[in-house]
Amino acid sequence: MSEPGSRTATPKRDTYTPESLLAVAVEVFIERGYDGTSMEHLSRAAGISKSSIYHHVRGKEELLRLAISRALDALFGILREPDAEHGRALDRLEYVTRRTAEVLMAELPYVTLLLRVRGNTDTERWAMARRREFDQQVAELLKQAAADGDLRNDVDARLATRLLFGMINSIAEWYRPHGGRAGHHEGEDVAEAVVKLAFAGLRTT
Amino acid sequence: MSEPGSRTATPKRDTYTPESLLAVAVEVFIERGYDGTSMEHLSRAAGISKSSIYHHVRGKEELLRLAISRALDALFGILREPDAEHGRALDRLEYVTRRTAEVLMAELPYVTLLLRVRGNTDTERWAMARRREFDQQVAELLKQAAADGDLRNDVDARLATRLLFGMINSIAEWYRPHGGRAGHHEGEDVAEAVVKLAFAGLRTT
Repeated sequence: MSEPGSRTATPKRDTYTPESLLAVAVEVFIERGYDGTSMEHLSRAAGISKSSIYHHVRGKEELLRLAISRALDALFGILREPDAEHGRALDRLEYVTRRTAEVLMAELPYVTLLLRVRGNTDTERWAMARRREFDQQVAELLKQAAADGDLRNDVDARLATRLLFGMINSIAEWYRPHGGRAGHHEGEDVAEAVVKLAFAGLRTT
Repeated sequence: MSEPGSRTATPKRDTYTPESLLAVAVEVFIERGYDGTSMEHLSRAAGISKSSIYHHVRGKEELLRLAISRALDALFGILREPDAEHGRALDRLEYVTRRTAEVLMAELPYVTLLLRVRGNTDTERWAMARRREFDQQVAELLKQAAADGDLRNDVDARLATRLLFGMINSIAEWYRPHGGRAGHHEGEDVAEAVVKLAFAGLRTT
């Protein structure tokens, strides 16, 4: 539809879909915080008018809901994968731990936004409730693995779950995909390190 | 100096010291973000006039510097404690891990602020540099313990340090002192759980 070169003009021709508009909105939400983001900020970042944005979505809360849904769908999807549903609780828990780290890195901006949500709107409160639900399902797996005798029982399951997610979620603070610079860690190495550290620990003895 | 009942009046009589003013300022910085906090917000939260605040400090950046210094002094203090300086690297690392978690909980608002600093002002850039310095000193201990053969060598030391601090720092997201409600974890249990999880892992087998 757009001729070569025409994309450098401002305002940009609106070739967005709700999904591609999302990627722009999520970056702005992360940069400015959801509360601190106005439709004007979104319009400027996308290079299209506010009315063009309203053509795609009802407003910024719908963009937040779409972004958070993408993160939650990916996370809850893990729990329906065969290796998360069948087998010994310990193996399922290790699998879910690894996949949660992988999904965080694969869907980095969306999961980052989910982790930063604090609950001032209905959408944010819904996001927090769904996130707690995910954590609780993993905590249940952890309890089952402890009941099987496969996990130490001298650490409270709720506390262990919090620390496990604390470690996984902290990856969002520093991980950047395709980071070519020195000291860059590949996603699979990071997920593997999380599983080793959380389940076997750092110590050799 | 103030008579009973007089403290309910607005504006409040200025009985602050730089230190007690800090406790108020830190709460506001955490609530609104440092960038989003004005002297007007601080004045309202403290219940004293802006000129009274200027009587104690030069401005909000000095309050940030004082708050961050308190967190950093406590953290760097750990590295000078006898058990952090003497003995096998593994034991020193476990000690520093436990004490870092303890200091985070004991100085919760100050360390929370340090962890949220992003680097838009000189003070913030200094804070980030000092925080990295602390992380690097712990990473050195971790490398030494791995060289001693006491830590697994199949996880990169820098990555292991990041995950270790990720787990410790995540405590700031949910830990609240004196939390009487169900499921509250005592600080010493939390620090103990961090050490167990990080060094021995969750698995029994």
